[in-house]
Amino acid sequence: MGLIEDKLNNLGIYLEPPKPPVANYVGSKRAGNLLFVSGRKSELTGKVGKTVTEAQAKDAARDTVVLILSIIKNDILDLDLIESVVKVQGFIQCSKKFNRLPQVLDGASALLIELFGEQGRHARTATGAAQLPYDATIQLDMILQLKSTK
Amino acid sequence: MGLIEDKLNNLGIYLEPPKPPVANYVGSKRAGNLLFVSGRKSELTGKVGKTVTEAQAKDAARDTVVLILSIIKNDILDLDLIESVVKVQGFIQCSKKFNRLPQVLDGASALLIELFGEQGRHARTATGAAQLPYDATIQLDMILQLKSTK
Amino acid sequence: MGLIEDKLNNLGIYLEPPKPPVANYVGSKRAGNLLFVSGRKSELTGKVGKTVTEAQAKDAARDTVVLILSIIKNDILDLDLIESVVKVQGFIQCSKKFNRLPQVLDGASALLIELFGEQGRHARTATGAAQLPYDATIQLDMILQLKSTK
Repeated sequence: MGLIEDKLNNLGIYLEPPKPPVANYVGSKRAGNLLFVSGRKSELTGKVGKTVTEAQAKDAARDTVVLILSIIKNDILDLDLIESVVKVQGFIQCSKKFNRLPQVLDGASALLIELFGEQGRHARTATGAAQLPYDATIQLDMILQLKSTK
Repeated sequence: MGLIEDKLNNLGIYLEPPKPPVANYVGSKRAGNLLFVSGRKSELTGKVGKTVTEAQAKDAARDTVVLILSIIKNDILDLDLIESVVKVQGFIQCSKKFNRLPQVLDGASALLIELFGEQGRHARTATGAAQLPYDATIQLDMILQLKSTK
Repeated sequence: MGLIEDKLNNLGIYLEPPKPPVANYVGSKRAGNLLFVSGRKSELTGKVGKTVTEAQAKDAARDTVVLILSIIKNDILDLDLIESVVKVQGFIQCSKKFNRLPQVLDGASALLIELFGEQGRHARTATGAAQLPYDATIQLDMILQLKSTK
């Protein structure tokens, strides 16, 4: 098992095989050394500021990163092939009054930095969405850089 | 005429010259072997779940891919230069209750896979938007990989 | 001082050191020759069509480009290292009736083209957002291509 997955296990996180995409797309697609990961919704549903608290949404953002890592492991087989996290785009279903979107996404970013160190630091965009697939609270997509050879 | 355009014609689809962008941007921009395509709105207007049905929106997503292929042909001259479809980002104007966003975008994805085969399979993000340009139902942007040489 | 910053100064624009990101992310991240810039919110807050006019939003889009250039200068030290502007993604907080999103983003695009000429022309996506961080009117992120060597 690789270094990154060891770190996950030390955090008490064990990657399960990912569910297949809910529609006609793939979990991730590689172009050169960039890996573009599809938007992954959180298991948690509902709107932040209505039925979901900021703390719950932040946890859901972190959990969504774990779901994404399962997808990436399934696709590239070894998480140690990841060179760096380049960009995270997060959409958050929220009430009209909730705008602490960056605090919610910090749940995702902190785990990525914990796992990948300085290389895990990434550019990020946080946006409130009118609606997400199946009423999900969070949706994250990512661009990663892969190592050239291993 | 190229292979991809032959396939389109066999589906009864003929590419027309694209309309110019509605504002101060270009239809697509190349960086290395990646082609970044601007967001293209559907001809269809209105919100899914209000004045637009899911089936109509799905058709509009497919039609928007055709509009995008017109733009790409205009910019790179030959659709056979496309190596693969990397990422599709779709925004959908919808009512507060509609969240079957993936089903709508499948209208776009199915056509891309029909045209480009396995290389047409792509990463994807589906998001509900509060408002799209000129009340459009759908907006799609894409990242494609181009062949290095031809 | 570089050519691009000279042009900015001739427009009466002087770059100030950027504020640190409001949360756990970095201002921009490089992957190969691509520079992915984090979503930057406008100083202006409120919704277009409600408390903010189209003209004010357009100005805010332009001002947000200046904020982004400060971030990029801080990260890559010299704006002349920018080869071209590849993609601009803009989110706009707006009322249910406002959909002239492209006109708003033209405030951003015009400045980029003024500074970088033909290389400044870019692909673009304009989307209405339900909510932006801290009630910002505009949020822009970008992908730039950097020169290989200098």
